[in-house]
Amino acid sequence: MILTVTLNAALDVTYEVDGLVPNSSHRVTAVHQRAGGKGVNVARVLASLGADVRVTGLAGGRTGAEIAGDLSRAGIPARFGTIEGDSRRTVTVVSGDATVFNEPGPSVTEPEWRRFRALFVELCRDARVVVLSGSVPPGVGQDAYAQLIADARRHDVRVLLDADHEPLRLGLAARPDVAKPNAAELARVAGPGPVEEAARQLLAAGPAAVVVSRGADGLLGVTPGGSWTVRPPRRLSGNPTGAGDAVAAALARALLSPGPVDWPRALADAAAMSAAAVLSPVAGDIDLTAYREFLQEITCRSPRPPR
Amino acid sequence: MILTVTLNAALDVTYEVDGLVPNSSHRVTAVHQRAGGKGVNVARVLASLGADVRVTGLAGGRTGAEIAGDLSRAGIPARFGTIEGDSRRTVTVVSGDATVFNEPGPSVTEPEWRRFRALFVELCRDARVVVLSGSVPPGVGQDAYAQLIADARRHDVRVLLDADHEPLRLGLAARPDVAKPNAAELARVAGPGPVEEAARQLLAAGPAAVVVSRGADGLLGVTPGGSWTVRPPRRLSGNPTGAGDAVAAALARALLSPGPVDWPRALADAAAMSAAAVLSPVAGDIDLTAYREFLQEITCRSPRPPR
Repeated sequence: MILTVTLNAALDVTYEVDGLVPNSSHRVTAVHQRAGGKGVNVARVLASLGADVRVTGLAGGRTGAEIAGDLSRAGIPARFGTIEGDSRRTVTVVSGDATVFNEPGPSVTEPEWRRFRALFVELCRDARVVVLSGSVPPGVGQDAYAQLIADARRHDVRVLLDADHEPLRLGLAARPDVAKPNAAELARVAGPGPVEEAARQLLAAGPAAVVVSRGADGLLGVTPGGSWTVRPPRRLSGNPTGAGDAVAAALARALLSPGPVDWPRALADAAAMSAAAVLSPVAGDIDLTAYREFLQEITCRSPRPPR
Repeated sequence: MILTVTLNAALDVTYEVDGLVPNSSHRVTAVHQRAGGKGVNVARVLASLGADVRVTGLAGGRTGAEIAGDLSRAGIPARFGTIEGDSRRTVTVVSGDATVFNEPGPSVTEPEWRRFRALFVELCRDARVVVLSGSVPPGVGQDAYAQLIADARRHDVRVLLDADHEPLRLGLAARPDVAKPNAAELARVAGPGPVEEAARQLLAAGPAAVVVSRGADGLLGVTPGGSWTVRPPRRLSGNPTGAGDAVAAALARALLSPGPVDWPRALADAAAMSAAAVLSPVAGDIDLTAYREFLQEITCRSPRPPR
C-alpha cells in the first residue's frame, strides 16, 4: 500500500465566471469542489491507475469533514489526524484563465501533531511506500518531514519527499529514498547554478535519489550510480498544476517493487504520467489514454556516469 | 418583535490579499466570515440598536450550519427553514477595492417551501413587523413574497418589502405596508421616468407607502397623503453595501409603533442610519456614534401634497 501524507489538506473550490473584472461583482455560474492538497492529488492519480493507496494528513472543522466526504465519495480510503482548526480552502476563479486564492492553513497544536505521528506510525505498518507532499501548516515544526521520514524508515517503509524550503532541506538529512523538487524548489535549497550540479548537491545531503521536475524540459534523475534525462513526448499545452504530483505518483509506484529501482523505466513512466496530467484540466486527474500513448513514445537515455 | 426573512441566506466570506492580479495565484492573508444576506444585515442593524429582532429564511447544508452558528455567536435569535441544498457563499476579495463572487443559491423543493411557510406563519404570531429582503432562490415561485405578505396580513403583522424584479412586482399587489426599492429596482418595475412619478406608479399597485433609496441623493417617501425628500447629512465616502438594509431596519422600527407612521421622523431616521451604514466597512454594521450625530443634522422637509 502507498500512503500519501497531506499535512495541509484543502478543499479546492472552483468558481466559473463569465470574465474576471477586478473591483466588480460577479455571478458565479457554477461551483465545483473537491478534496485537494498535493498528497491528495498524488493519491487520486494512483487510485485512477488501480494502485492500493491510502490518504492521511491533518484535517479539521467543517472543511475537514467536506474533504473526508469527498474522498469517501471518490472511493479513496482516507484517515486524517483530526485538528481543532478548520481546514483551508482554495478558491480558483476560472474564466478561461485561472485566478487562485489560497487560504492560510489552520494552526496545528503540539498534542495534535503528537497524535498524528502516532496515527502515521500505525498506518506505516501496512504501507510499503510513503509520499510526503506539500507545505507544512503553521504550528508544526519545519522538521516535520524529517520526523516522519525517521518514523517510516524505522518501519522499513520507503519514502518519497516532495517539499520546499526548510521542510525539504531538513527532510533530506533524514535520508528519504527519493527527493522530488521542481527546479524552483531545488534552487531555493541548493542555490543557483546548473540543475544537475544542484541536484548532486541535494543528493549529497542524504536522499538515495533526486528527481527534478523541470516542466517542459522534462525530468532529471540523479543517483549515486548515474543520472538520466527524460523529455516530454512533445510540446504540450494544458494545465501544469498537478503535473508534479503525477511524477510523485509514478515514482511511488516504482518504489513499490522491492529491490533497486529501475530508473530509466521509472523516469519514462513519470514523464508520461506528468504529460498526461498536463492534458487534464483538473489537478489530480490524468488522461489515461494519453498516458498509455506517451509510454510508447518516451524513452530514457542511457545513464551518464556520476562525475 | 421584528422578523426579518432571508430566503437566500449566505455565508459572506472576505479574503484579504495584497493585490488582485487576474490569472495569478494569491496568498490570502486573512479570512473573515459571517452570516449574510439582506435580511440578516437588517437584523444585525436592528440588534445593534437593541431592537427585539428574529431572523428566519431558508438555509441548509454545512454552510447553513455555519450561518446559524455565526448568528448564534452574535446573539441574534434565528430559526431557519431547513433545506437539503447547501446554502450559498459569497467571496469578497479585498485589496483596497472589493471584488465579489456570488455563488448561485441552492434550489428549494416544493415541500421545503411549504414547510417554511408553516414556520413563517408560526413566527408571525409573535411578530409585529416582517421585513422581506433580497432575492428569491431557484425553485421558489416568483410570487413567494406575495404569499408571505398575505400570510403576515392575516396575522395583522405589518410588512416591509425590499425586493427586485418579478418578486417585487407580484409582492406589491399583496399590499405590503412599505415597499423599499432602490432607484434601479424602481426603474425595473415601473419603467423609466422621473423617480417620484415612478414611485407613485408603484404606490398605485398596492403598497401603503413607497420609500425609494437613492444613494447620495437620499430618500424619497411617497404615501397617499403626500411625499417627502430627505438628503444625507453630507457627501460621504465609504461602503454603500448595506446602506439599503439600514434604511429597511429604520423603517421596520417605525412600523413597530401602532397607528399611522410619522413619516418625516421615520425618513430622517432612515437617512441617518443609511449614512451611518456607509461609514462602516461591513454590510450589517452601522457607526452608532455617527448615526446619533446625523440624527441631529437631518431634517425632513414638509410634505408635498399628492398630485
